[in-house]
Amino acid sequence: METINPAPQQAPSARERILLTAHDLFYQEGIRATGIDRLISKSGVTKVTFYRHFPSKKHLILEFLEYRHQRWMAWFIDALVRHSGDSKALVPTLAEWFHDKNFRGCAFINSVGELGETMPEVVDISQRHKQDMTDVIASLLPVSQNQKYDAQALAVAVDGAIIRAQFDRTPEAALSSIDRIQKALLGMSK
Amino acid sequence: METINPAPQQAPSARERILLTAHDLFYQEGIRATGIDRLISKSGVTKVTFYRHFPSKKHLILEFLEYRHQRWMAWFIDALVRHSGDSKALVPTLAEWFHDKNFRGCAFINSVGELGETMPEVVDISQRHKQDMTDVIASLLPVSQNQKYDAQALAVAVDGAIIRAQFDRTPEAALSSIDRIQKALLGMSK
Repeated sequence: METINPAPQQAPSARERILLTAHDLFYQEGIRATGIDRLISKSGVTKVTFYRHFPSKKHLILEFLEYRHQRWMAWFIDALVRHSGDSKALVPTLAEWFHDKNFRGCAFINSVGELGETMPEVVDISQRHKQDMTDVIASLLPVSQNQKYDAQALAVAVDGAIIRAQFDRTPEAALSSIDRIQKALLGMSK
Repeated sequence: METINPAPQQAPSARERILLTAHDLFYQEGIRATGIDRLISKSGVTKVTFYRHFPSKKHLILEFLEYRHQRWMAWFIDALVRHSGDSKALVPTLAEWFHDKNFRGCAFINSVGELGETMPEVVDISQRHKQDMTDVIASLLPVSQNQKYDAQALAVAVDGAIIRAQFDRTPEAALSSIDRIQKALLGMSK
């Protein structure tokens, strides 16, 4: 089973080790909370190697978000296909993620909350991430005049459900809400 | 007009000045990004006064969230009443907030993203805030068997709309999505 945190297939390069470490720590503990020294020691690389690949923490943050985007989208598409590949796949796919023991909300929502004011690039990457998520959701819906608007509304609801699952520390209310919203939207569009 | 950031009615006490400063800086720039020294100098109090009121930054963070909760709820209820006081009031109320030049998303969503892992109390306060928001939304809806579930789903959608307005830096897609979801939910519940 594909997960959002797959083990690398072969021995990772120094650059990959740093990115994997950043992926774990930034997502689990927060970006500002994670110092460069800890990243270096947990990656098992030298300071020189670290700075050769990532001249500053800002470089690493932006590459982390790009890396997270690729991994999350790959997981999302794979999970949707595993669960039927149509609009019925959305709730069980989100359930899989929300039940993951490492779930700590959306890395992009969390990053914008932390850094949006000081690093506008973080908002740009996050907006692209949500646009790609919206496009994938649109592809699950039946072709209709409202497909684009329903997908946009569903994507908004998915973000709200992510927040709710994170706040509640249990996904039931988040999942029943997204299910209710999806049924209402698709019922209205029929 | 009541706003989320009203000026205090009389000369504020030292404690109020610190809380007002924390409210501005924590919300605008982030909690970790705002150091104690900056809070002290911007509040115009001495270090001794600061620590007498708030023995640690953690104390201030929790009081800030409580203060934000009170102010936001007061504004939310006031704005809903000004705009019709029924379910039609939700979109214009959110529009007012999303168009505010100081809008930077939800202080609770941002705080959980920053601190949720290291300060579980932040998640508890944030969950209570969202429960209160959900209860107010429920009171806008017509009495029905589905009132509670519709309110919960609408509250989830409101959180998603907050994120969307924050990412897009313009509220149009967020507002049209919440409008679409609300119409679909209330249409389904009729």
